[in-house]
Amino acid sequence: MAQNRQWLFNKRPKKDIEADTLILQDTNLPEPGDGEFLLRSIYVSMDATNRLWLGDWDLYMEPITPGQPMKGFTLGEVVKSRNPAFPVGALAAGLAPWAEYSVHDGIGFSVMPNIPGLKLAEAFGVLAIAGPTALVGLMEVGRAKKGDTVVVTAAAGAVGMLVGQIAKIHGCKAIGIAGGAEKCRWLTEEFGYDHAIDYKREDVVQRLRGLAPEGVDVHYENVGGELLDAGLSVMKNFGSVVICGLISTYNSAAGDRIPGPYMFRNLIMRRLRVEGFVILDYVDKYPQYQQQLAGWMLEGRLKGRMHVEPGIERAVDALKMLYTGANTGKLMVQFGREPQGS
Amino acid sequence: MAQNRQWLFNKRPKKDIEADTLILQDTNLPEPGDGEFLLRSIYVSMDATNRLWLGDWDLYMEPITPGQPMKGFTLGEVVKSRNPAFPVGALAAGLAPWAEYSVHDGIGFSVMPNIPGLKLAEAFGVLAIAGPTALVGLMEVGRAKKGDTVVVTAAAGAVGMLVGQIAKIHGCKAIGIAGGAEKCRWLTEEFGYDHAIDYKREDVVQRLRGLAPEGVDVHYENVGGELLDAGLSVMKNFGSVVICGLISTYNSAAGDRIPGPYMFRNLIMRRLRVEGFVILDYVDKYPQYQQQLAGWMLEGRLKGRMHVEPGIERAVDALKMLYTGANTGKLMVQFGREPQGS
Repeated sequence: MAQNRQWLFNKRPKKDIEADTLILQDTNLPEPGDGEFLLRSIYVSMDATNRLWLGDWDLYMEPITPGQPMKGFTLGEVVKSRNPAFPVGALAAGLAPWAEYSVHDGIGFSVMPNIPGLKLAEAFGVLAIAGPTALVGLMEVGRAKKGDTVVVTAAAGAVGMLVGQIAKIHGCKAIGIAGGAEKCRWLTEEFGYDHAIDYKREDVVQRLRGLAPEGVDVHYENVGGELLDAGLSVMKNFGSVVICGLISTYNSAAGDRIPGPYMFRNLIMRRLRVEGFVILDYVDKYPQYQQQLAGWMLEGRLKGRMHVEPGIERAVDALKMLYTGANTGKLMVQFGREPQGS
Repeated sequence: MAQNRQWLFNKRPKKDIEADTLILQDTNLPEPGDGEFLLRSIYVSMDATNRLWLGDWDLYMEPITPGQPMKGFTLGEVVKSRNPAFPVGALAAGLAPWAEYSVHDGIGFSVMPNIPGLKLAEAFGVLAIAGPTALVGLMEVGRAKKGDTVVVTAAAGAVGMLVGQIAKIHGCKAIGIAGGAEKCRWLTEEFGYDHAIDYKREDVVQRLRGLAPEGVDVHYENVGGELLDAGLSVMKNFGSVVICGLISTYNSAAGDRIPGPYMFRNLIMRRLRVEGFVILDYVDKYPQYQQQLAGWMLEGRLKGRMHVEPGIERAVDALKMLYTGANTGKLMVQFGREPQGS
């Protein structure tokens, strides 16, 4: 009987992830060396950016090459340790192979604080990636301020659901764009958005013009393509456009020429600042962000809607969900049981 | 005999300016009312943005509509005045009809200071528009600092020729992109650029990679299209991209869909800030910029290469030159003689 299983990156996909892109294989249980620890994976975050790591694009980090295990942002339990900063029993979060067990030296990992009152999946789902991404993007990159009108695409997604709530906490008007009536209902009923636009059914530009007749101050982009063009069409002079993600373009091959926004000239006409960011650059300030976010969660002002797929076997199918919009909340895969008592 | 002539905007062009787009017509000499003055046009600046005013795009200002006179940034002499701020004999600069004579109330106009040692055409050509545009774009929008590598497109153009010199004044490395061997020679021999790239003959991305192996800090864009894509390909992480002009897209009809940069995803991958600006927004700080620029000119550290076309009849043909690159310096049309003694 195998002691460990992992997803191997087998072959680059042309566009969408294919049957032979990633393969689940049996492997040995690794042994931590000096300064290392053995992590038992519990939750693995599924993020749109994961797909990018499988391409041969010029990326914000080293891509994964075929023959290496697939990776993801992971919460696990330390089960063996030769690193005093990560003692046995600690919950640690960081970038790890898509495996039941993996060995780490601790670089890029942090011990996840125990926050009484928060479920583990919710704490990980909000605090690890999506929450800091929403907060940094809206407040530091977007510089949203009280009274601003904020537009968010993929507003029912892991990051978008939080951006709307954080915008409301700061006194902004929040307009969310999502696909389908159900997701739009979550926006206004669960995530505090003032207005929801269903891009599958409505004329987005026309709705935005009606909801924000004086224009939009901050546009938070997770999708790209037509929704970004709609956003650029209704910006106020001197507005900010935050480029957090461009998921509509991630399922493409390295040679594909993907046009940028057709409304690009509005950068001049409306004197816009368009700025991209990567949350990994802000890792030093994570404790401060997480404290802020956890505080709002405990006060009931910020909530995450989670979507947990069970079992390491589900990882590839789960990742694909992000590209069809089939997930119904912040998506993660449970690779192993939660520790007893948590 | 007519007392005045002006260019009337007759009919919107489909793409390039056509024979019936603008027509030169005889008209009466206007009479200044209370608070107004009569301006005799001397130099009219030809700027790429003028073409935009003839479209029905959503603009940074009110477009001109057919039936109105064409407009341009103009230096003239006050020849009659009922406005004490603009006495007879003063040189005044502002947006005026393409006419030999026009009446103004002074709003948006400033008296041009007499700067001993500077020729009138050069003072107007550098200080009125191009100089403040170069300075604001590079230093305030682009936030260039000592040691930065700066790339400029249309580097032999009215603005580009100044950006390189201002970059050198601030201790940057300046790389200019222009079309043709002669313009490239100006870049390094007249405008102080460290390196020139001839986009008509060279592989721009490859040259940029060779000249800036560690990447580019500030990209100053005047053109758009392929040159902007080349620039986005070689940016350093956290670099700034200044969108001053997109002249490659201005000769297009309102319905045309013009793709934005194909390397748009590099906003995320390289964490770029891309920001557009319009120099009219900075008009309050003009005196300060002009003093700075004039100082550098008098010290011999900043020079403009001028291209003056003679006579109001030449205005339309002159404007078209900007779109073929036929002009050989900052382009203006001389509508009337310089005042005696200037």
